[in-house]
Amino acid sequence: MSLRLHAPVVLPCDPTCSVLRDAVVDVVDGRITYVGEAASAPAFDGEVRSLSGILLPGLVNTHAHSPMTVLRGLGSDLPLLRWLQEHMWPNEARMTAADIGTGMLLGAVEMLRHGVTTSAEMYFHGPELVSSVLAAGSRVVFGGAILDVPGMSWRSQTDEISSWIDADGLVSGPGGRVELAYGPHSAYTLSPAQLTEIAAEARERGALLMVHVAESPFEDEAQRAEHGSVPALLKAADVLGGRVLSAHSVHLSDDDIALYASFGVGVAHCPGSNMKLASGIARVPEMLAAGIAVGLGTDGPASNDDLDLFEEARLAGLLARVSTMDATVLGAAQALLMATRGGAAALGRDDIGALEAGRWADVVHVDVDDPAFATGVDAPDSQLLANLVWASGARRVTDVWVAGDHVVAGGESTRVDRREAQAGVTAVAARLRSA
Amino acid sequence: MSLRLHAPVVLPCDPTCSVLRDAVVDVVDGRITYVGEAASAPAFDGEVRSLSGILLPGLVNTHAHSPMTVLRGLGSDLPLLRWLQEHMWPNEARMTAADIGTGMLLGAVEMLRHGVTTSAEMYFHGPELVSSVLAAGSRVVFGGAILDVPGMSWRSQTDEISSWIDADGLVSGPGGRVELAYGPHSAYTLSPAQLTEIAAEARERGALLMVHVAESPFEDEAQRAEHGSVPALLKAADVLGGRVLSAHSVHLSDDDIALYASFGVGVAHCPGSNMKLASGIARVPEMLAAGIAVGLGTDGPASNDDLDLFEEARLAGLLARVSTMDATVLGAAQALLMATRGGAAALGRDDIGALEAGRWADVVHVDVDDPAFATGVDAPDSQLLANLVWASGARRVTDVWVAGDHVVAGGESTRVDRREAQAGVTAVAARLRSA
Repeated sequence: MSLRLHAPVVLPCDPTCSVLRDAVVDVVDGRITYVGEAASAPAFDGEVRSLSGILLPGLVNTHAHSPMTVLRGLGSDLPLLRWLQEHMWPNEARMTAADIGTGMLLGAVEMLRHGVTTSAEMYFHGPELVSSVLAAGSRVVFGGAILDVPGMSWRSQTDEISSWIDADGLVSGPGGRVELAYGPHSAYTLSPAQLTEIAAEARERGALLMVHVAESPFEDEAQRAEHGSVPALLKAADVLGGRVLSAHSVHLSDDDIALYASFGVGVAHCPGSNMKLASGIARVPEMLAAGIAVGLGTDGPASNDDLDLFEEARLAGLLARVSTMDATVLGAAQALLMATRGGAAALGRDDIGALEAGRWADVVHVDVDDPAFATGVDAPDSQLLANLVWASGARRVTDVWVAGDHVVAGGESTRVDRREAQAGVTAVAARLRSA
Repeated sequence: MSLRLHAPVVLPCDPTCSVLRDAVVDVVDGRITYVGEAASAPAFDGEVRSLSGILLPGLVNTHAHSPMTVLRGLGSDLPLLRWLQEHMWPNEARMTAADIGTGMLLGAVEMLRHGVTTSAEMYFHGPELVSSVLAAGSRVVFGGAILDVPGMSWRSQTDEISSWIDADGLVSGPGGRVELAYGPHSAYTLSPAQLTEIAAEARERGALLMVHVAESPFEDEAQRAEHGSVPALLKAADVLGGRVLSAHSVHLSDDDIALYASFGVGVAHCPGSNMKLASGIARVPEMLAAGIAVGLGTDGPASNDDLDLFEEARLAGLLARVSTMDATVLGAAQALLMATRGGAAALGRDDIGALEAGRWADVVHVDVDDPAFATGVDAPDSQLLANLVWASGARRVTDVWVAGDHVVAGGESTRVDRREAQAGVTAVAARLRSA
């Protein structure tokens, strides 16, 4: 399959956030073979599709629990602990594997409409979750959740992921859409010894390990009292050797940041969730300055209610600026890179998150027929990036390709009937309410 | 003209943020005559329109400089002073009255698509600005900007507004769409004596006075050194007697808040602009607790790049929660009320901002055919409000009425060709760039 996408603006999301004018993205068998100006492009034999707006890589959501679409808005505005105890945990205990598939299907469809082609999901019932992702045509890093709490067995949850990887390989599915990973929940729901074992199994298989770290000031007092900080605990437990994604990571010290930088730990920054749950303000400018790969995450739609990573990019910029009282500390280009290339890097992936020869052809088209772009598609680069990041956001995403497959057209899924996916969630939500 | 709007959900935005089910909004001659459940509604003789989603009052943008759509994204990510000196001021000096009309036309169309039916505009060239608002069919409180800086005459700017009010009345236009007001820019661009005179002229006419207050920590050192704070200066200059709207109002002391409460000063809270320009975090929970009428403002689209007040409502909630580390301090209902009823109150208006008999029929319909509402339109009230405020936002605004006139249908203006309005801005932006 050969496809050339041709548009007035292409944002490859290379490290300098270049803006290419009148440029093409060539795709062969799901991979990008060329990105550059049309005038100097090689001869191309295949379908050519002309677009009128901006092409950019599919966004990478580095931290989500997307099946929670079935709980969206429930118990909102309660304090965290009451929200968890009264609404989330009782409902999650009632959710079946099929419910999780239903929730993930809508989540994947919703994310694709917002230009998100990959999400890192820490959740349960991997087969049903992955099957919904494949039905929608998007891409997932599934980190099976592992907790040592009543009613769950951390050992069998760990075994499940290990056997799955041993059977299917770390990466599988059409277009390499599925990556398997380990999702040890946190240092306060697992012991250091358990974390050590899980990390060893992950490292042995070259797998990503995703873990919640220092989200709120309250969750991990005991661990901090003993180890000083959760990153210090993770180091002591020999967790930091392999591919590690640290979600939230709000309350980090200078030492924690230096530790993460030295071990190449990636961070999933979740500004919307951290604000809404009053968890705190992550030190993103310091992390970026230290060379840490920082991506963006929506967290679950039950706490941060849509799955719009463009909004997280905007929030990341706004929050960094007001919290440092420095309007230059995080600009549009950097926010966009965090949502794309930076997210891929945080996941330890160099095959997504940028329009670059050799990477998967996960591509998003943003239409410019919108007031946000009225100052002109020929405006200076910085202005055009500002229009995209600060003004239009996801509103004008019209087309999305994943591994070269056209999975969103005219703003709607080509694979899944969105209304049916919504109706599925409506039925699950109603059943959970009446339980 | 008689119109009944009938929908499964109506949010009147009364003080308790009631959620009415299967309800109607009756409109006669542009005013609301009844709001309540369909089952107990009076007999109605006129057009009945059935809608499938949520009806709520048109949003009230309490602080904007919307003609700056022609400068959107320009010099973004620069520090404030360089942004002003290198980009805003030189360009504004080149903008003609016609340019301002062009910029306002797109701004009004854009706001209406986002469900904003009223905006308080502090800007120049009132006749052209107002004419664009009327062409789009929205509603405006025009505060003619008044500054004592080189090239401008505060005296003639003040006279212009006074004579305009004396000639046309404070409120004019079809459906009472135009209110005139005074826009003394700030205490650092006008002397206390000048502010006193302007306030006297406003009070004499019952007019609103809108003024920037304590936006950044840097702007008004001299004034603070002499008077302690800008609110104290405004009191000393006898500005606080009449209808006063204090924009931004970020850096207020306890005394300032008490002063505002005692004088009934309204506040235009601009969270997006205050974050993006790194101005600081306004003390909204304290202001609300003190009984101050707090509305929301987008500020100008050159600094806070779209004119989406739903987004400001969400930001107001998120920012208040993270800055106080209290997830219960500002919920969905309160955020929605700030965007509607609270905004009207901040402007000193009781004829907009709520669906209530006697008020103007400024009504917005939000479609629920969206993943944001998939947990069901019959979900509990708090969940439905959460879905609207935290998840859907402006994305699904399909229809808007202003004074009973259907000015947006299917998400597009019924009055103005949006593409032509965009093209007008494109031409102005290109001319300004090449100047």
